[in-house]
Amino acid sequence: MTPSSPRGTRVSHIGIAVEALAKIVPFFRDVLGLPEVRLDDSDGASIVGFSAGEPLVELLEADDASSPIGKFLAKRGPGIHHICFSVDDLDAALERCRRAGIQLIDEKPRIGAEGKRIAFLHPRSTGGVLIELSDH
Amino acid sequence: MTPSSPRGTRVSHIGIAVEALAKIVPFFRDVLGLPEVRLDDSDGASIVGFSAGEPLVELLEADDASSPIGKFLAKRGPGIHHICFSVDDLDAALERCRRAGIQLIDEKPRIGAEGKRIAFLHPRSTGGVLIELSDH
Repeated sequence: MTPSSPRGTRVSHIGIAVEALAKIVPFFRDVLGLPEVRLDDSDGASIVGFSAGEPLVELLEADDASSPIGKFLAKRGPGIHHICFSVDDLDAALERCRRAGIQLIDEKPRIGAEGKRIAFLHPRSTGGVLIELSDH
Repeated sequence: MTPSSPRGTRVSHIGIAVEALAKIVPFFRDVLGLPEVRLDDSDGASIVGFSAGEPLVELLEADDASSPIGKFLAKRGPGIHHICFSVDDLDAALERCRRAGIQLIDEKPRIGAEGKRIAFLHPRSTGGVLIELSDH
C-alpha cells in the first residue's frame, strides 16, 4: 500500500451526482472529448468514469433513492458530489484529521470503486466539501 | 495560445466557495499537506490556491455579498463551486458546446485568475455542474 517514494496529496477524482447517465454522458464524452475509463459500480450508484488528465471524473447515478447519491440528489439536486485526494499514507492522514477535530464518516478505511482503500470525511468539518481520501 | 502537441481535456482546478479563508486554509495546508501556490484574486473573490498533483484547488472567499461567490454562498452554502477543464483549443470547444445546445455564460473567452483565457458554461446545461473551460 505504501508507495516507494512520496507523491504528495493529489486530486484523484471528482465525483458528480447525475440524474440520468444517458442524458449527461454525451456532454463529457463528445463535447469535452474525455476518454471513458472502466470503473466498477459502487455504493448503490452506477458509475461512468472519464480520464481528465491526472484525475478521473466519475458520474454517479443512484440505483435507488435510499443510496448516498439518491439522498444527495433529493436534497441538493445534481452537481458535484465529492473530491477524492490520494495521499502517501492514508492511516497517517486519517490520524491527522482526528487530531485536527475533523469528523470522519469512515473511521477505518474500506475498499472503494477503484479497488483502493478509501475513507470519507464529513463535509461539516471541511467547509461543506465531501472529501474522500484514498491510497495512491 | 495553442500548444504544440494536443494534451487533451484535463482538470485544471477545482474552485471551492468558503465562508472564511482563515478558518479552512489550515485544513488544506496542514492536515491534507497541500503546498500553497500564489494566485491573483479575481471576480470579487479572495483566492488561496494549492497544488494538488496536476490540478490546483482554489479556495474562494467572497469580497462582498453581490459577487458571484457571495451569491453562491447565500443560495447553496459553502462547498465545491466549479471545475475548470483546460482544453487544446478553447474556441473550438466553445463552438462544440454551442452546437450541442450548451448555454454559455461567457460567449467570448475572458482572462481568468491564472491569466489564461477562460469561459464558463451554465450549470443548467451541464447537469448542475458549473464548468469553466480554459487554455492549457
